[in-house]
Amino acid sequence: MTRTLVAELPAHLEETVTVYGWVNTLRLQRRIQFVLVRDHTGLVQVTHLRGGEDDVIEAAFEGVTVESAVKITGRVVANPQVKLGGLEIVPTRVEVVSPAEPKLPIDEKTGIDQRLDWRFLDIRRPSQQLVFDVQTTVERAMREVAAEEGFTELHTPKLMGTASESGAEVFEVGYFGRTAYLAQSPQFYKQMAIAGGIDRVFEIGPVFRAEPSFTSRHATEFTGVDVEIAWVDGAEDVMAFEERMLHRVLTAVAERHGAAIAEHFGTRVVVPELPFPRITMADALARLRATGWDPEGVKEDLDPEGERALCGLIAEETGHEFVFVTRFPAAVRPFYHLRPEDDPSVTESFDLLWKGVEITTGAQREHRYDRLVAQAREKGMDTGPLSGYLDCFRYGTPPHGGLGLGLGRLLMLALGLPSIREATFLFRGPHRLEP
Amino acid sequence: MTRTLVAELPAHLEETVTVYGWVNTLRLQRRIQFVLVRDHTGLVQVTHLRGGEDDVIEAAFEGVTVESAVKITGRVVANPQVKLGGLEIVPTRVEVVSPAEPKLPIDEKTGIDQRLDWRFLDIRRPSQQLVFDVQTTVERAMREVAAEEGFTELHTPKLMGTASESGAEVFEVGYFGRTAYLAQSPQFYKQMAIAGGIDRVFEIGPVFRAEPSFTSRHATEFTGVDVEIAWVDGAEDVMAFEERMLHRVLTAVAERHGAAIAEHFGTRVVVPELPFPRITMADALARLRATGWDPEGVKEDLDPEGERALCGLIAEETGHEFVFVTRFPAAVRPFYHLRPEDDPSVTESFDLLWKGVEITTGAQREHRYDRLVAQAREKGMDTGPLSGYLDCFRYGTPPHGGLGLGLGRLLMLALGLPSIREATFLFRGPHRLEP
Repeated sequence: MTRTLVAELPAHLEETVTVYGWVNTLRLQRRIQFVLVRDHTGLVQVTHLRGGEDDVIEAAFEGVTVESAVKITGRVVANPQVKLGGLEIVPTRVEVVSPAEPKLPIDEKTGIDQRLDWRFLDIRRPSQQLVFDVQTTVERAMREVAAEEGFTELHTPKLMGTASESGAEVFEVGYFGRTAYLAQSPQFYKQMAIAGGIDRVFEIGPVFRAEPSFTSRHATEFTGVDVEIAWVDGAEDVMAFEERMLHRVLTAVAERHGAAIAEHFGTRVVVPELPFPRITMADALARLRATGWDPEGVKEDLDPEGERALCGLIAEETGHEFVFVTRFPAAVRPFYHLRPEDDPSVTESFDLLWKGVEITTGAQREHRYDRLVAQAREKGMDTGPLSGYLDCFRYGTPPHGGLGLGLGRLLMLALGLPSIREATFLFRGPHRLEP
Repeated sequence: MTRTLVAELPAHLEETVTVYGWVNTLRLQRRIQFVLVRDHTGLVQVTHLRGGEDDVIEAAFEGVTVESAVKITGRVVANPQVKLGGLEIVPTRVEVVSPAEPKLPIDEKTGIDQRLDWRFLDIRRPSQQLVFDVQTTVERAMREVAAEEGFTELHTPKLMGTASESGAEVFEVGYFGRTAYLAQSPQFYKQMAIAGGIDRVFEIGPVFRAEPSFTSRHATEFTGVDVEIAWVDGAEDVMAFEERMLHRVLTAVAERHGAAIAEHFGTRVVVPELPFPRITMADALARLRATGWDPEGVKEDLDPEGERALCGLIAEETGHEFVFVTRFPAAVRPFYHLRPEDDPSVTESFDLLWKGVEITTGAQREHRYDRLVAQAREKGMDTGPLSGYLDCFRYGTPPHGGLGLGLGRLLMLALGLPSIREATFLFRGPHRLEP
């Protein structure tokens, strides 16, 4: 028995095929049984005229429940009256492979929390299937760019012997009588790879944050896209890579899924023009203050309100959904961000904002051992626990820079989803470890 | 300043270029200074005739240390006497971007443990760079096959609310006042995706095993390749996918890296013929016992010695490096492996052995709720903690099967490395959490 996908049916008119899928809808009328069957490529109507004695198909359809997994064999027949592609299947054999219990625990009206409890049922909806189709397209496009530009795919460890940059917000793991920590970012490891002579590093993998945050864009575990590039001349090289990558990503998403995204989410995928707008943090703060944001003039960093307002200003001015904010003050950036020669009060760093939300932090890193140690001390850090990191700068390390991008946020914004919870296969938050 | 890669130099004869890299070797003779510079694409000789007064290049080369990061600008000149591609660079400018301390902590004679302590220096060796180039090729080839066959790229959570299949060997994580567990495998989650209507699941991600194992093929954290396929008719469908994937992988590795692998590791990459040999566990045991293995006849599973011996037998008979061992006894397989109708004492499962080492476990899963519960109980399991898993089989779940493959083992065997430690960027074992 060979499977035919629902999307392939138009090529099989007047043939006998077998489709595998789920019972989406049952309309069992007095003389005709209509059963809509769904697979991951679409919906098809199966139409059965109730027969006489021993009609096993009639009996199967009477007994089957919605969401049962079925195999339906039958003839593909053109029928202009059928909305689903103008065709239907006249069944000759029905197999209920796995019956669903009659009462489903969620329906279209169920709230997000209970839907997450039954996530496997939730993602059967075509709109949710689309999320993961888009994710696949996004990653493929990213890897195409990475491959063309000579990146090495790396897997950095998630178990660390010492807590990374900030001791807070890190999960502790019992490890053969000692404590390990879950990596909050591949940051140090990808720099280690650069120090190891790997020219360009690319990784997509899990990132863990023990933050008790309950916003629509935070998770305790999420998928990070990490990039590190050797021999950069500044953060600009990293930004230029990121905009090339995102341009490719959104071109692919628009081409392959633009219509479906519009249909399911009412969101238009805009392929961004290159280059993306850039604004220094100093200019951004000045622009925002002129609009009344931060009336006291004390903020050195953008808060979510500032990020939204800035994207609004830039969109109004340029029509662009993205903006790179550059040269963050050294005070709000980690010790390892490089400080430009012309102004050591700032860093050779950036955030990328999209539709009002930060999706990336990036920077050129300080690669000179003495400066790195001095900057760590200036931040009041104990360099002892950092020694494994600092050692990487003692034996010849090229200038380098990189970025980290949250895949869930990117998907959430690309599709116009209300929360990262809906852009993640199985969301993890302070109150959610299941399913 | 534009960078020219060492591998590109033959196309730039008689031009002035700048190469970025590390000082590989210094031979500072009385009249001539020879400096070999290495980037990730090769080695080039830089030749400087000592000059007269104020020779800043002479001074730079006198002061520079091996492994310092440098930028060298100069003219590319043909010189048939130079072994490295018959060309050399006559420098006009030397910049020491990041000096190396004079005494390196490891050299060619250093043992594996100390080399792992200084892994970033260890991987500067071209042979180690090759490991990660091959890894990149392997993953790209896998994803090509996955894309062609309609797989969805998924990221399953690594933080779990309940310990997966075996309570032992799982790392515990402090999680906001409760305990989470690190996923030993994406097994349950990828099945959940299948129950969620995702037709084919593909994931490459970290896997955590709290096993105190110290063999050459075990790690506490490794990169797993996971596949799950809906609507299979048996384990055969999964094996057929895996051999297609590995055929593609080894074809790509042989083409792109075959010569380099032979040069650096003396290993010949053999593109396997399709199909791979298959042998049932019962036949494998009988064949092995005939050779004297397990003289008491008590083993139901293959031990490492049995795996090596079986691969030896198959290689002798068929010339093939791979063998699928099928139909493992139900006693040695997890409760969720499907048992074939014709013999419920075995499972619809397989291992894949390559060159004497197990690299994959796979199976068709039991998708029928009642049987699954019965099999769990038969194994003496408490179904309470399993309820989240079992719920996925209550609302229509298609037959499905999948496999898990260790990327490090695959690389180790493809290259002929002595240990998974050398096939992993940063190895994690019971005694190793650093660097």
